[in-house]
Amino acid sequence: MSQVYDRVALIGLGLIASSMYWAMKRGNLAGEVTGYARSAETRATAREIGLCDRVCDTLAEAVEGADLVVLCVPVGVMGAVAGEIAPMLSPGVTVTDVGSVKADVIAQVAPHLPEGVHFIPGHPLAGTEHSGPRSGFAELFDNRWCLLVPVEGTDPEAVARLRRLWEGIGANVEEMDAEHHDLVLAVTSHAPHLIAYTMVGVADDLRRVTDSEVVKYSAAGFRDFTRIAASDPTMWRDVFLTNKEATLEILGRFTEELFALQRAIRQGDGEHLFDYFTRTRAIRRGIIEAGQDTAAPDFGRAGRK
Amino acid sequence: MSQVYDRVALIGLGLIASSMYWAMKRGNLAGEVTGYARSAETRATAREIGLCDRVCDTLAEAVEGADLVVLCVPVGVMGAVAGEIAPMLSPGVTVTDVGSVKADVIAQVAPHLPEGVHFIPGHPLAGTEHSGPRSGFAELFDNRWCLLVPVEGTDPEAVARLRRLWEGIGANVEEMDAEHHDLVLAVTSHAPHLIAYTMVGVADDLRRVTDSEVVKYSAAGFRDFTRIAASDPTMWRDVFLTNKEATLEILGRFTEELFALQRAIRQGDGEHLFDYFTRTRAIRRGIIEAGQDTAAPDFGRAGRK
Repeated sequence: MSQVYDRVALIGLGLIASSMYWAMKRGNLAGEVTGYARSAETRATAREIGLCDRVCDTLAEAVEGADLVVLCVPVGVMGAVAGEIAPMLSPGVTVTDVGSVKADVIAQVAPHLPEGVHFIPGHPLAGTEHSGPRSGFAELFDNRWCLLVPVEGTDPEAVARLRRLWEGIGANVEEMDAEHHDLVLAVTSHAPHLIAYTMVGVADDLRRVTDSEVVKYSAAGFRDFTRIAASDPTMWRDVFLTNKEATLEILGRFTEELFALQRAIRQGDGEHLFDYFTRTRAIRRGIIEAGQDTAAPDFGRAGRK
Repeated sequence: MSQVYDRVALIGLGLIASSMYWAMKRGNLAGEVTGYARSAETRATAREIGLCDRVCDTLAEAVEGADLVVLCVPVGVMGAVAGEIAPMLSPGVTVTDVGSVKADVIAQVAPHLPEGVHFIPGHPLAGTEHSGPRSGFAELFDNRWCLLVPVEGTDPEAVARLRRLWEGIGANVEEMDAEHHDLVLAVTSHAPHLIAYTMVGVADDLRRVTDSEVVKYSAAGFRDFTRIAASDPTMWRDVFLTNKEATLEILGRFTEELFALQRAIRQGDGEHLFDYFTRTRAIRRGIIEAGQDTAAPDFGRAGRK
C-alpha cells in the first residue's frame, strides 16, 4: 500500500484515533501522523504507548503542515475545535471527522472552515465498549463500513483520496447524505444504545432483585445489553443531543411496537408473538451472511472462557 | 466423577437436552440416557448424531425404568407431557424440567405427578441463539448458573442428588422460590429478549431505511440485539405467555424509564443522560468480574474474523 497523505493530524486520541493510527502504520498510509489531545494525561499515555509519530502539546503544532486533519473529538465539541484550527488551515487541506452524527456536525464545523479547505465528514461504523488511547487496535475497522458524507460541491478528487485512506485502513466505504446517515444510524446504533442503557438502568434500580443477582444471572440474555451500555458516556450524551429528531422518531416507533407486543402478552395472543419472533430471525441470518457478525453460538464466547 | 443416576430420560431433544447429554457423557454422570422427541425427524437426527444412548419412539419407552426424567419441552406443553408420563412414574423417581418460567410450570406439572415422585423444577441459565438437537455442546453449562426451585416439602436428599448432577454438568447451582425466580428472569432474560425482538422488528419495518442497510451497518450496535432476537420462537412465545405478570411489570418500568430518557433528549438535558450512562458502566464491570462474560472488546469478535 502506498502513502495516501504526507501528514495526518489526529485531533483527540481515543479509541477511534488510536485504532486509525495503528491501522495507518500497518498499511504505511501516511508519512507522519501527529496527535493532539486536550488532556495532558492522555498525551502522556499516547507518548508512553508510542501512539502517533509525534504527540503535540498544542492544536496549532499538530495541525501545522497536515494535508489531512481528522477530528476525533466528541460530537458536542466539533464546532469549537474546528473554530480553533481554522486559522491554521491552508487551501487544499482535507478536514474530516469520525463523529456518529453528521447533519449537526456539518452545521457546527462547516461555517468555520476557510475557502479551499475540503471538508468531508465521515463516520467509521466500528467501536468497542472500551474507550481511551489504550483501547485502540489496528484491526478495528477491518471489514467494517466507513460512511463518507460529502457536502454538495466537494472536490471528487479529495473524496477519492480519503476513500483510499479508509480502504487502506481496512474498511469498506460508502457515501450517503447527512440526513439519511442520521436516520440509518438512529436505527442501527443510537436507538439500540439508548434502549440498552435503559434496560441496564432498570435492572440496577429494581428493589426486589439485587444487583448481584442481575450480575450472576446475566448470561440469560441481559449481558448482551450491558456491553453497549458500557460505552463512553460523553460520546453518547452528545450523540443523543445532536441526533435528537431521528432518535426520537425511532424510539417512538419502538415504543409503539413494544406496546403492541405487551398487549399481545396481556391478551395471551400467542400467534402474534410467534409470527413476530419468526420474522426477526431472518435479519440475524442476513447479518451473518453479510460478514458483519460471527455465526458462532453466543458470539463464540463459549470457546474463550 | 461418579454416576449420579442410573437412568436419565431426556424428553424433548433440543439445544438444552442435547447439551445435557454431551455434558453427562463427558462427566460419566449417568448409566444410560434415553431420549424422546415428538417429531420423527428430530428422533432421526438424534440417532444420526449419536445423541442419547437410546432414542425411543414412545414416551413410555423413554421413561420406563428412569430414576431421573428431565422435561426439556417448551414451557407451554409441560403440563400435557407430565400428564402423559404420570402413569409410568414409580415412587422415588425424580422429575425435573429446564423451563425458563417456574410458577406456571409448577402449576401445570405438579397436579399430574403421583405421590412419592420428587418434582424438582429447575432452570439452567444457558443457551445460544441456535436451537434443535444439532446445536448442543458439552460446554454450554460450564460456569453458568442452574437454578433449582424445589416446592415445599421436597426430599432434601433428592434435591442434593439433582444438584450433584448439575454440578457435574459444569453449572453452579442455586436455590430460590418460584415467584422470585420468575421476577429475576423477567429482568435478566425475558424483558431483554422482548426488547431485542421489538427493536429488530422496528428496523425491519422501516420504509426509509432498507433491510440491506440495517444488515450492513449493524456493527454499530444493532447486531448485539439480533443475536437474542434470533432465539427459538416457540420457546419465547411460551415464556411470555406463562411469565406474563413479571414480564409486564418489568416492561412497565422499562417504558417509564425510557420515556424519562426521551424527555431528557428532547429537552437537551445532557447532565441527566451523562449521569445515567455513567451508572450503567459499573454493572458491566460486575458481570465480567463475576465470570459471566468476556472482557475482550466486542465480545472478542475482532479476534475471530
